[in-house]
Amino acid sequence: MSLSDQSPLHGHQLIGQRSLLATGKPLHAINPANGETLEPGYPSGGAEEVELACKLAHDAFDSFRETDPESRATFLETIAEEIEAIGEQITERALQETGLPRARLEGERGRTCGQLRLFAGVVRAGEWLDVRIDPALPERSPMPRADLRQRRIALGPVAVFGASNFPLAFSVAGGDTASALAAGCPVIVKAHSAHPGTSELVGGAIQRAVKRCNLPEGVFSLLYGSGRILGQALITDPRIQAVGFTGSRSGGTALLKTAQNRPQPIPVYAEMSSINPVLLMPAVLEARAESLGQAFIGSLNMGAGQFCTNPGLVLALEGEALERFIATAADSVAASGCQTMLTPGIHDAYRKGVEQLSSLPQVKEVARGALDSDNASPCQTALFRTSASDFLSEPALQEEVFGASALIIACRDIAEMRAVCEHLEGQLTATVHMDDADHDAVRQLLPVLERRAGRILANGWPTGVEVCQAMVHGGPWPATSDSRTTSVGSAAIERFLRPVCYQDLPEALLSPTLRDANPEALPRLMDGKR
Amino acid sequence: MSLSDQSPLHGHQLIGQRSLLATGKPLHAINPANGETLEPGYPSGGAEEVELACKLAHDAFDSFRETDPESRATFLETIAEEIEAIGEQITERALQETGLPRARLEGERGRTCGQLRLFAGVVRAGEWLDVRIDPALPERSPMPRADLRQRRIALGPVAVFGASNFPLAFSVAGGDTASALAAGCPVIVKAHSAHPGTSELVGGAIQRAVKRCNLPEGVFSLLYGSGRILGQALITDPRIQAVGFTGSRSGGTALLKTAQNRPQPIPVYAEMSSINPVLLMPAVLEARAESLGQAFIGSLNMGAGQFCTNPGLVLALEGEALERFIATAADSVAASGCQTMLTPGIHDAYRKGVEQLSSLPQVKEVARGALDSDNASPCQTALFRTSASDFLSEPALQEEVFGASALIIACRDIAEMRAVCEHLEGQLTATVHMDDADHDAVRQLLPVLERRAGRILANGWPTGVEVCQAMVHGGPWPATSDSRTTSVGSAAIERFLRPVCYQDLPEALLSPTLRDANPEALPRLMDGKR
Repeated sequence: MSLSDQSPLHGHQLIGQRSLLATGKPLHAINPANGETLEPGYPSGGAEEVELACKLAHDAFDSFRETDPESRATFLETIAEEIEAIGEQITERALQETGLPRARLEGERGRTCGQLRLFAGVVRAGEWLDVRIDPALPERSPMPRADLRQRRIALGPVAVFGASNFPLAFSVAGGDTASALAAGCPVIVKAHSAHPGTSELVGGAIQRAVKRCNLPEGVFSLLYGSGRILGQALITDPRIQAVGFTGSRSGGTALLKTAQNRPQPIPVYAEMSSINPVLLMPAVLEARAESLGQAFIGSLNMGAGQFCTNPGLVLALEGEALERFIATAADSVAASGCQTMLTPGIHDAYRKGVEQLSSLPQVKEVARGALDSDNASPCQTALFRTSASDFLSEPALQEEVFGASALIIACRDIAEMRAVCEHLEGQLTATVHMDDADHDAVRQLLPVLERRAGRILANGWPTGVEVCQAMVHGGPWPATSDSRTTSVGSAAIERFLRPVCYQDLPEALLSPTLRDANPEALPRLMDGKR
Repeated sequence: MSLSDQSPLHGHQLIGQRSLLATGKPLHAINPANGETLEPGYPSGGAEEVELACKLAHDAFDSFRETDPESRATFLETIAEEIEAIGEQITERALQETGLPRARLEGERGRTCGQLRLFAGVVRAGEWLDVRIDPALPERSPMPRADLRQRRIALGPVAVFGASNFPLAFSVAGGDTASALAAGCPVIVKAHSAHPGTSELVGGAIQRAVKRCNLPEGVFSLLYGSGRILGQALITDPRIQAVGFTGSRSGGTALLKTAQNRPQPIPVYAEMSSINPVLLMPAVLEARAESLGQAFIGSLNMGAGQFCTNPGLVLALEGEALERFIATAADSVAASGCQTMLTPGIHDAYRKGVEQLSSLPQVKEVARGALDSDNASPCQTALFRTSASDFLSEPALQEEVFGASALIIACRDIAEMRAVCEHLEGQLTATVHMDDADHDAVRQLLPVLERRAGRILANGWPTGVEVCQAMVHGGPWPATSDSRTTSVGSAAIERFLRPVCYQDLPEALLSPTLRDANPEALPRLMDGKR
């Protein structure tokens, strides 16, 4: 595809079916590899753009949430088609805006479309409606029972904040948007300022899908602007009923506070901070220290360490096997090429985080990777070590350094390993490498890990999150703001629903889903039985 | 049963299997009918009692949450048996402490035991585990899929704050406790100070059930003390992972703020405030104004108006039919006997609320019920009217007056009725009385009511909440702090669970629930199919 085939970028706010030029200070993407400013500028929106998007979303809500499962599923599939129709242009722009490699961006585009189609299937299957019917018992003594029918309905318009590290799969048409639309919620996305061009391309695809499916225009809007102005205006708008966010702990916490201090507090699904402990049990470490050390650095370096599930912490018993693991890992780190980070700001935070860690007296540097001085946002892999007792006494050692930096903790025994696990904050993942001989020790640790993490992995690496039915990408605070949910996988739809019960409502007024005839053939709990 | 058969009350804190006398200022129940102080005193607990209860609950958690469904269900049934074994003594004490009529208290005891047995059935059925298994796809291209298995586990120890208005069904062994225990969460109840004796009796029953079932003692504790000291200590303890509360808007909001400001915020399920609008549509009002007026006051007076679902607001079109409705309702109010409120404090708040309402220039008094000057906590039924335009312009008219007080709003047309509904805060219930000729008008209102309420009733009255599968006792803020949930009915268990995913975990380390053999024969989503 030549450049002349590509639709030009306009820097417009996409509000419903409109394309509007805002009047605030323009945001520009920056190519993180060379620091170059990318055109066009995206003039920042503010209260006026939020007002229009929220009004349209509210106006669309009652109609959109009652679309039948088939229409809603078709809409999600149409978005996927429209994204595929743009094809390569998305990758070309994202390459410039994110510094991520081409193969990763192409894979992520496929994953984004696959995710939309997964939710189409979820919508059709209808379990998310959680239909429960308790028929009337007019003869029951001492009191008759009324006819009671429950379904779940969409919460309302949802604000989604695009993530920097997944410019497609967790941005404009990513997991939050797909699951909120699947639930029947109109979505207003605040584009991440790191990839506005990629956002505009994908936002245009959703805009066209809304039109092709004859849905009310307010089902989707895409806004550009600062978090402090446009983001705050969005969360405090009374028509917004939930928030999806993937980003930093400070950003997520700020959003959460704002949402909680509204006259009507609303749910915030913020996926924030995780250092993803990896436990190396004694028998497996003894048997495979070297291959584990190598594989560990492979996982650490994926995407320049900018995965939410990046393995930032390794726990093992001190001793000769651990030293072999560390020696191999150190060699792999030293051989690690310099990668480009997502933005100059993320690079800066990474550099400072690594500096702070290495300045602590309890921490010893194990190895550093290559550093390319021509790169404007380089990620130099960094590996450190400390003891369990030092880790337990210094809270700063538990802070996430976003990027390819990790800390190895040498524990005296399994009890101390367990103590470190108890001491950890909430995590997205906890990984345990084990041989059969380690099972008894793992049994002691599992209850702690279950309390600390949303996903427990055996003999693998946490980077890479399957989009499926059984996935949990979530976990206790501060991994997320709501441990009861997942942001990846089919259960993510449940975040945007609430139950409503209808008592003795005449059949003619019931939603088709709740009528006796069950015209959509959806699963139901009838008088307590499936 | 003679008094000598009854186990004496001790005023002890029941912490695990221990009975301890705290050292704080003793709380005494007061008979609201005559102001008499009831023995024994309940010395207030504080930080020390909270510490012990939380330690025991934490110690019990990992073991209790892994009890198999059958054992957990048996435990809930054993609690019901133990409550039944106390029998009449509970009613006798609750009569003195609450001023509620005997039949109501006997019914509530049955309902409480029925609720425990409902949750036993829910636990056995196993849908709450939401087991999802996506088997490994080692041959998948370009990337193999790992074996992924999801189940839900209990959140952790739960703090439950007993409600004043349901001294059994929403207190020590009420809906919050039953659903949290069903989920596998240890429970620490803060007894409501209005009925400490009833609480001690029921708490003793749970204590004995824990022992009979050989469960770790920390599964249940019952504490007495002030909300400001003991309550705050409980919510801020890092081992507490969720809160259940039924009470006032100010109380629930304070709890929520405290929980949100913890280093680790936790979910709060507060059921707080609802005025439960009742819409009388034109055709039905024309046809049955008088019988509706009479039935309305019957519902308003139930339990001296101290139901969460008490109908505090009536909407109808102005005109002759509404005047007939009002005239009949006024007669019924005037004939209403004086009832006893739950506590002198609730009586006082009711008196002030009614005074404030009647002092507003937009409000006209329609009728008042009888007032018994010998009663120390009398509820004098009160009925007021106003216009829709006045209601829309005066926020004070929307404030809940807890007790048998209601406000009738005369609307000019259906559009104005809809505007009033849009203007309402979140509600537990919304009721619509209609004839077939009203269906078209109701269709315009239903989407608004769905956005505003957790339960929509046709041609009935909101008081009386069936404990079943399809019930929703919940609703948007400020009816509750979390509209995604219900506090009554089987879905209440979902409030105390979070999903955990196991990736490639060896069969030997998996919970039986997740093993291939499915020994408990629980429902599962296998590769996306049931």
